[in-house]
Amino acid sequence: MAVELSRRIDWPMIDPANVVYYPLYWDLAHRFFEESWEPICGIDYPTIISEHRLGFPAVATNSTHHAPLRYGDTAHCRLWVKEVGTSSVVWQYRFADQNSNVVWSAEVTTVCVNLDDFQPQPIPEKIAESLRRCSED
Amino acid sequence: MAVELSRRIDWPMIDPANVVYYPLYWDLAHRFFEESWEPICGIDYPTIISEHRLGFPAVATNSTHHAPLRYGDTAHCRLWVKEVGTSSVVWQYRFADQNSNVVWSAEVTTVCVNLDDFQPQPIPEKIAESLRRCSED
Amino acid sequence: MAVELSRRIDWPMIDPANVVYYPLYWDLAHRFFEESWEPICGIDYPTIISEHRLGFPAVATNSTHHAPLRYGDTAHCRLWVKEVGTSSVVWQYRFADQNSNVVWSAEVTTVCVNLDDFQPQPIPEKIAESLRRCSED
Amino acid sequence: MAVELSRRIDWPMIDPANVVYYPLYWDLAHRFFEESWEPICGIDYPTIISEHRLGFPAVATNSTHHAPLRYGDTAHCRLWVKEVGTSSVVWQYRFADQNSNVVWSAEVTTVCVNLDDFQPQPIPEKIAESLRRCSED
Repeated sequence: MAVELSRRIDWPMIDPANVVYYPLYWDLAHRFFEESWEPICGIDYPTIISEHRLGFPAVATNSTHHAPLRYGDTAHCRLWVKEVGTSSVVWQYRFADQNSNVVWSAEVTTVCVNLDDFQPQPIPEKIAESLRRCSED
Repeated sequence: MAVELSRRIDWPMIDPANVVYYPLYWDLAHRFFEESWEPICGIDYPTIISEHRLGFPAVATNSTHHAPLRYGDTAHCRLWVKEVGTSSVVWQYRFADQNSNVVWSAEVTTVCVNLDDFQPQPIPEKIAESLRRCSED
Repeated sequence: MAVELSRRIDWPMIDPANVVYYPLYWDLAHRFFEESWEPICGIDYPTIISEHRLGFPAVATNSTHHAPLRYGDTAHCRLWVKEVGTSSVVWQYRFADQNSNVVWSAEVTTVCVNLDDFQPQPIPEKIAESLRRCSED
Repeated sequence: MAVELSRRIDWPMIDPANVVYYPLYWDLAHRFFEESWEPICGIDYPTIISEHRLGFPAVATNSTHHAPLRYGDTAHCRLWVKEVGTSSVVWQYRFADQNSNVVWSAEVTTVCVNLDDFQPQPIPEKIAESLRRCSED
């Protein structure tokens, strides 16, 4: 099941064109990604990092902007897992505003690495199972 | 001719995995983009914004990470224009580190808008010409 | 009455020393400041900006760091107004972690300006009254 | 002798009031601080961190804003060391714009810590000497 999370669009996210500065869509996506670990796997991301010493760096990202987000809006993110490979995971993000208009959609491919040497490693089976259950619907 | 620009990788760009936080590749790309207006068009971006009232918001972005950037590295960006349409421009970015290893490559499609109403508008011909001359080689 | 708000410490706030990057305490303070307008004055900050055309830029800031915040912590902010002048407001912030340890305390003096010309102007009386009621206890 | 460094004011530093978002003065100060290690001590900050395992977290900060910085400006920073204690260092920053108008002045007290346990420790004498020579004039 997809995860749904939301955040306020704060003042520092807005650029002089009065819209969210586009690199911050990726920053928001990453913050939602982090927050999603507890609902998806029952383990929070700080534990994944500090105890399991696993990281999930992005290796490929792509996105489409459908409409701008502005100051005072709320970003509602729907996030799910499209594919789980041996060490790769493909995540989908769809952001809507408070009126349910889709504003941004994105796909991020991450690879599971050992944080001590940054080498790819298989996703632990228990985590992989939880990720596979986080499908679009 | 492609534009070449570079920036230090500063401390606040590094995340707890000791690599550049991935949304900041987009932030760096945008800062290089801005800086490139003067070498490409002979007009700085603040003038484009405040006098011409034009903006170039991203409508599609995609990237591949080839290797991480770390603290103490320098990001060398090669930036060029792949396509110029009536109001759209497709930009290419290739980041290398100080040892000439390619670390990130990206494509950003922007659309020219009037900043007052955020509606697409044709790229002024003088600017379009300069952009067309900014090819890969 | 003081306002209490809280936020997760997200991954991108952490620097390579594994603590929150210190300029981000000010960034957090500003985000709490913004959020506090609705509980203090019954008007959200986007409305203050876009309809009233008022801004409250910082003119003086000072702070003390008592202990670091780390990844996985939650910042609990207690925010109140120490003084309201004709156009100046002095705000106090106290951040504690999830165990009620005070980690940071700060004071920010802002001045009320007209956003169109950035000139100081008297705080509208209705807003000044609400701010005066936001005392420490 | 004081160190002088400068940086462009980029688009993402500007907030919707068309001035630099105030927490970013601290972010700029930190980036200048980092860059100053090589001219002051002949050792770059990444080496201080990764080889010496020393950190210099801020324990007290205070600043005054004299005038706003805007898009297209350049921040020229003059940075010097006011005091060197056993483990503390007091840094002074003065930012001017491209017309030599002072826009911001600040003082940051840092404490030298061992990055592995975050405990204060004496500043190595060779570094302390270099810091003492970085006086205002």
